[in-house]
Amino acid sequence: MKAVVPFKTVNAKSRLAEILTAEERERLARLMLDDITGALREAGLQVVLLTTTPYQYDAEVVVSEKDLNSSLNDFLSTEAEPVMIIMADIPLITVKNIRDMLASPADVVISPGRGGGTNVQYIKEPRKYHVDYYGASFLDHMRIAEDNGLTVEFFDSFNASSDIDEPQDLVELYIHGRGRAAEYLRSFMALDVSNGRVKIVRDVQKVPEGRRPGRSVATQ
Amino acid sequence: MKAVVPFKTVNAKSRLAEILTAEERERLARLMLDDITGALREAGLQVVLLTTTPYQYDAEVVVSEKDLNSSLNDFLSTEAEPVMIIMADIPLITVKNIRDMLASPADVVISPGRGGGTNVQYIKEPRKYHVDYYGASFLDHMRIAEDNGLTVEFFDSFNASSDIDEPQDLVELYIHGRGRAAEYLRSFMALDVSNGRVKIVRDVQKVPEGRRPGRSVATQ
Repeated sequence: MKAVVPFKTVNAKSRLAEILTAEERERLARLMLDDITGALREAGLQVVLLTTTPYQYDAEVVVSEKDLNSSLNDFLSTEAEPVMIIMADIPLITVKNIRDMLASPADVVISPGRGGGTNVQYIKEPRKYHVDYYGASFLDHMRIAEDNGLTVEFFDSFNASSDIDEPQDLVELYIHGRGRAAEYLRSFMALDVSNGRVKIVRDVQKVPEGRRPGRSVATQ
Repeated sequence: MKAVVPFKTVNAKSRLAEILTAEERERLARLMLDDITGALREAGLQVVLLTTTPYQYDAEVVVSEKDLNSSLNDFLSTEAEPVMIIMADIPLITVKNIRDMLASPADVVISPGRGGGTNVQYIKEPRKYHVDYYGASFLDHMRIAEDNGLTVEFFDSFNASSDIDEPQDLVELYIHGRGRAAEYLRSFMALDVSNGRVKIVRDVQKVPEGRRPGRSVATQ
């Protein structure tokens, strides 16, 4: 069974630009992707990366210049087997989460994202369904399922609902993450709890790998 | 078994002031409380409201002028039975969520809040535990459990993790809520998806109950 992961190869995670450099965002996006595809494979799924430009990745890579909805709907219209569509920015998702979705008796399983979004959809009969990822997509997807006479399970998971879009979202990854993306983040960022609300800040004590200045051992 | 719900009776939900009046915030806070205590009772729990000032409510009301941690720790130190501590601003929580927590074999079950917080804790042996609700409380609670040799279950729920603190959080309640708080919110607010990100705005077409001007039926 296939899991389609749309992945932005150019200027990924631009809303994190106020806190991370372009290089750091690119690396974080790639590590989040690795964490997610690792979990998908462990759950027995075959990963299909959907990109707008060619990209080197150890998976089937489908390149489409169409917008996200059209690309995904093209894909769905040709699939006879069940399909999972999963966003590339939900690194907290676990193998158990994926297995629990696969075990659902519903025709469509939808895991919401924050702010009305849709983070994961597991679609039993792709030809009877289509996606609509802009705006309050959760409500749109509920309506599309209903219009097609399909049963829906609301997948109630903190892990799957935590998409990493804005600086504040990095707090979730920093605190709860167990994969490589979280490890990377913790290698050069820190939590700041000085002001009531928990924030994430650059840790001047830590320096990310590959950016370490050539100090001698004695001064470290 | 008791479920303790800390409830702020004065200037509740002040971070929603930019979008809701004091009266609306007070009503919303009360309806969220009603939704949560309703679910707790349906799951068989006895509700204890913890407040800083006397408050009329159909439950045991414990008034303490101490800070949240001290009040709760005083309470825990006298309880022999398991206790659930649950925040009053997580109106999406369901009876099933509560039952699932109660069914856990772990010594402590912790449901995270957004941004490092702790939204629900189910504590089997309250005298062996204490709470620390400021800063990144999730990490503090994990550490307290570990220091006391207690096993912890991370309770992975979108519903239980969605605390309603800031205007943006109201989007979750508006879209996913099934209780009275969501119904109230939907009676005078609307979603705005015009700008990419889903926001909640006052709906000029809707007027909240009790604020309806005395129009004649003919003009409505």
